[in-house]
Amino acid sequence: MPSNDAQMAPRIAVDAMGGDFGPHIVVPAAVEAAREGIAIILVGDEDRINAELADLSIDGLDVSVVSATQVVEMDDKPADALRRKRDSSIQVACRLVKSGDADGVVSAGNSGATVACGMFVLGRIKGVLRPALAGIMPTEKKPVVLLDVGANVDSKPQHLLQFGLMADVLARHVLEMDNPSVGILSIGEEEGKGNAAVREAFDLLRSSKLRFIGNVEGRDIFTGDVDVVVCDGFVGNVALKLSEGLAKSMGRILKRELTSSWLSKLGAMLSLGAFKRFQKVVDYAEYGGAPLLGLKGDVIVAHGKSNELAMINCIRMAATSVRNKAHEHLAKGLAAHSDLVGKSEKAGKDAA
Amino acid sequence: MPSNDAQMAPRIAVDAMGGDFGPHIVVPAAVEAAREGIAIILVGDEDRINAELADLSIDGLDVSVVSATQVVEMDDKPADALRRKRDSSIQVACRLVKSGDADGVVSAGNSGATVACGMFVLGRIKGVLRPALAGIMPTEKKPVVLLDVGANVDSKPQHLLQFGLMADVLARHVLEMDNPSVGILSIGEEEGKGNAAVREAFDLLRSSKLRFIGNVEGRDIFTGDVDVVVCDGFVGNVALKLSEGLAKSMGRILKRELTSSWLSKLGAMLSLGAFKRFQKVVDYAEYGGAPLLGLKGDVIVAHGKSNELAMINCIRMAATSVRNKAHEHLAKGLAAHSDLVGKSEKAGKDAA
Repeated sequence: MPSNDAQMAPRIAVDAMGGDFGPHIVVPAAVEAAREGIAIILVGDEDRINAELADLSIDGLDVSVVSATQVVEMDDKPADALRRKRDSSIQVACRLVKSGDADGVVSAGNSGATVACGMFVLGRIKGVLRPALAGIMPTEKKPVVLLDVGANVDSKPQHLLQFGLMADVLARHVLEMDNPSVGILSIGEEEGKGNAAVREAFDLLRSSKLRFIGNVEGRDIFTGDVDVVVCDGFVGNVALKLSEGLAKSMGRILKRELTSSWLSKLGAMLSLGAFKRFQKVVDYAEYGGAPLLGLKGDVIVAHGKSNELAMINCIRMAATSVRNKAHEHLAKGLAAHSDLVGKSEKAGKDAA
Repeated sequence: MPSNDAQMAPRIAVDAMGGDFGPHIVVPAAVEAAREGIAIILVGDEDRINAELADLSIDGLDVSVVSATQVVEMDDKPADALRRKRDSSIQVACRLVKSGDADGVVSAGNSGATVACGMFVLGRIKGVLRPALAGIMPTEKKPVVLLDVGANVDSKPQHLLQFGLMADVLARHVLEMDNPSVGILSIGEEEGKGNAAVREAFDLLRSSKLRFIGNVEGRDIFTGDVDVVVCDGFVGNVALKLSEGLAKSMGRILKRELTSSWLSKLGAMLSLGAFKRFQKVVDYAEYGGAPLLGLKGDVIVAHGKSNELAMINCIRMAATSVRNKAHEHLAKGLAAHSDLVGKSEKAGKDAA
């Protein structure tokens, strides 16, 4: 369990080997975060990390290095990564949190392995049925939290309720939103729409202390009018990847059309600033990674393609979570709703 | 059951009252389709239809009018529309197919009511477990068929197999694709990824005669590299509406950025042609509506916001389905796989 005093700087273990660009991107990002008062522990191949650090000025910064001799590859299966690579950078980083030497972990490595290591090494906060991965997506206004985006499939109603409770804590205490609204992803606005699990979860969420606004549809996610969207991890993962794919496809189509004649090319050049701002809104890098919620310690799963800015944002997010004691709020929120979860679990068993 | 000779023109009953714009858009679209050799039966308020027809030249075209005294409103519940509005334009249009006076129906009205009327009035083709609604979405290359996009929730593996079989027929015999590839929507490319129903459906699809390419992810839908994507209607509906919402949001963000300075405004003006072509790729109108598959008669659910082009495309799609005898191919395809469906159904019962 992370032991952290409010006066102490948050201590974030950063998997230096993770991501498509490895230490060359991760180390400078971590050093940049250290300049903001975050204590950084770089985990991985000491020689490679030190080579990157040699090019940077780290005087007076709280940056340390912990050796890990193995690296989880992007195509390693999570279970194999857990068992056969016990000295991998991601597993060593998680153990630093377990032992109380760090408060959180950020990794842009194999995301399945990061989730598996987080769950296996850190364990769940008391009362959490299923840890879940939060997608934070850009919208026309402010970011929206989608939970779960892939840690769970075939979620039961009580899991969906807990996703709402955990995402509410993320929105309040990490993204620092004021009184976030919570919707459940369904296929119609009216009550009674959806599949069996969603219809039952609707009732649980309505009985909760959350600011529940009912069903939201796929088209509502990107308007920015809802802060938290609850869904099963299968649906959320499809939604997340589809959004990413569609945004990229639209960008490519636009580029193709804009370079199809000299006139449109000229126009595009004049509008370059606008396109860059457009890209920035669409760009996931701005919002950093996916926090894994419900574990004894903060784990942020960064995108494999994360650039330096994305990595800095992920480290900041982990630090904010520690500073704002998100875990304590999460445990309290779950405890305050344990009756509701218990009732639903019992109903599920009776029906089975 | 539609009785149609290959020499005869396809006869399409068009719900003249449907959609946000009603007869004013639907009637001219239907007349335009009649010019292409489609026999059109306009169903709805005779006075309003005739008033629209008076402005159009229909000499020598096969256009007739059938009266329906009621209209299903956009907020009517499907069950109410079925029971209380037995003389609604959509229900009368479906009965024309049932009685053999038309081969297909196109409606831009209340889509839930259209689906309900189609299912209730026409009934299923022999062997079809669950009729399903096909989304046809634009991609970077060619359209992709997503099935189901909302007629079913909590689909079982054998339903997912049939969605694949029905969508394959749509792709081959209506969209006239050559040897379409079929994927199943999941949360990872590797076999074994997905929820329980998807994992079992994977095996069924692999054992089928379809050109099954395995799991596809959300990000693969819009690349245009897969022709048919099988999914549960809950997931498909979320995906469809999310795509629509995201495309619109991206359009609004781009517009906002492009009008933020005189330089970018000038640039945007010079690139206007490119933006219009971009919009056209993104615009659902180009591809018309959602065919409801598995019924004894073609039903095309057009978007409520359909413009004239979208309506023409929907009528063309229904006509192509009739001309190419898609129903016969569908019945044959299902019959050829009845062993596989039966085996899965039995397995489901044994497990329950």
